[in-house]
Amino acid sequence: MDCFLLDCDGVLWRGDEAIPGASEAVRTLQNLKKKVVFVTNNSTKNRQSILKKLANGIKAVKEDIISSSFATAYHLEKIVKLSGKVYVVGESGLVEDLENAGFECLGMKDGLKHEFPKPFSVDTDIKAVVVGLDRNISYYKLAYASTCVRTIPNCLFIATNLDPTYPVDDAFLPGGGSVVKFMETAVGRPPDAVIGKPSQDFLKRIVELYSLQTAKTCMIGDRLSTDIEFGRLGGLQTLLVLSGVTAKSELESTLPSEQIPQYYASSIAIINELENHKKPRTS
Amino acid sequence: MDCFLLDCDGVLWRGDEAIPGASEAVRTLQNLKKKVVFVTNNSTKNRQSILKKLANGIKAVKEDIISSSFATAYHLEKIVKLSGKVYVVGESGLVEDLENAGFECLGMKDGLKHEFPKPFSVDTDIKAVVVGLDRNISYYKLAYASTCVRTIPNCLFIATNLDPTYPVDDAFLPGGGSVVKFMETAVGRPPDAVIGKPSQDFLKRIVELYSLQTAKTCMIGDRLSTDIEFGRLGGLQTLLVLSGVTAKSELESTLPSEQIPQYYASSIAIINELENHKKPRTS
Repeated sequence: MDCFLLDCDGVLWRGDEAIPGASEAVRTLQNLKKKVVFVTNNSTKNRQSILKKLANGIKAVKEDIISSSFATAYHLEKIVKLSGKVYVVGESGLVEDLENAGFECLGMKDGLKHEFPKPFSVDTDIKAVVVGLDRNISYYKLAYASTCVRTIPNCLFIATNLDPTYPVDDAFLPGGGSVVKFMETAVGRPPDAVIGKPSQDFLKRIVELYSLQTAKTCMIGDRLSTDIEFGRLGGLQTLLVLSGVTAKSELESTLPSEQIPQYYASSIAIINELENHKKPRTS
Repeated sequence: MDCFLLDCDGVLWRGDEAIPGASEAVRTLQNLKKKVVFVTNNSTKNRQSILKKLANGIKAVKEDIISSSFATAYHLEKIVKLSGKVYVVGESGLVEDLENAGFECLGMKDGLKHEFPKPFSVDTDIKAVVVGLDRNISYYKLAYASTCVRTIPNCLFIATNLDPTYPVDDAFLPGGGSVVKFMETAVGRPPDAVIGKPSQDFLKRIVELYSLQTAKTCMIGDRLSTDIEFGRLGGLQTLLVLSGVTAKSELESTLPSEQIPQYYASSIAIINELENHKKPRTS
């Protein structure tokens, strides 16, 4: 292996709590001169805030981090070649990445609106509605966003990711995928694009950006339907860790073939043990 | 026909606006001594508030009205034989119907909570989470509700209805089904029961309550996947009206056989015309 793509939530931390042995594992890989890239579907934090979180024990630079918010801004600016106004059902990290790409973001204050104006109208200059995890949703915001997609000609509906939940402390809270499903139901059609893992367009961009050889790259993640499928479809090696959303019992159930990981371990700390085995024994 | 089951939103009104000719149509049916029952998936209003809305031109008594909130309370009290605390993702009409059935309802103030406490815990005495249209949703409320279903043993997940949208003025706003899809994604499984149309348990209860003969009963509604499917599966006659969520073009697309209405008309006002045709011509 030359390169490791590391998911963050459920692999390096759960909520604000570091997973024991995770930062040592990253250091182990880096000491072995492996390229380590942090690939997260979390759209609520931008590169800078993920870097800050990594800084608790992990050496990294901004360029080593790819989040679905960064990839969403890239997709809209460089691939779809959009500019102008976008309506965001998402948090500040996503807005910052979109603003850095030149977009004017609307909707940030709409989570606090509880009154519903009549008649209800939307800004018809909005070019796209971007939907990810948003812990400031309101009915107003979701109604506004769905009305944009329903009524503005050619208005795109972009999902940052489809993760149904995310792990925090001892719980699983609703993830970006839950918000996307609300929107999908309200507008009557699926998103025009889903940016994060398991999107193979997303992988293609990462492969190009870091000049990776897929057969020599390993994806380490905690979710079968995003991380493992992402790696399997793209011809990467895959390591599932059980420190996040997937229970061991799920591995024993019937899984789609693209979601069966090549390896699994209780956590990324397994990498420290492998390294220890390589050292000459002193006994 | 002896009896007409009438949907309300999109048939009698759109938002606060009455559909022209609707109240005359109801009067026509009543004058012809037809039994008229108002059957709505709207869970935000209880019988009393629907009665008040009908009062703008339509003669009805409380007992002629069946809403999904009423049926949800009935289901939990009489069928599942539950009692105690329920967590409600819904509005005051639903809460009132549940309280009338003896339940203690939690969650009504949680739409205003924007802070997320750590650690996050739920009241483990909650016996069911009831989900319908809620224009006061917050992430906190949805996270609380999904955590109840995920973590409290035997906690039921009940959906009042699956209508993806509802018609208001010139727009379609997110309906109860959008909220249910969020929850379904966050908890990782479908509801234990969906109460409203097209549920055949719901129809069975209505048939019993009013001693209806299904072959002599006609369902009039504006949505194929609820009203028409409800009627078709139950052996009722069905009349689709195009004054609500269904466009005529949808009738020309490929539909599941249970969603093909026997009759369609631009609105329920067609009933007034039929009646006029019966009168002796004076020309």
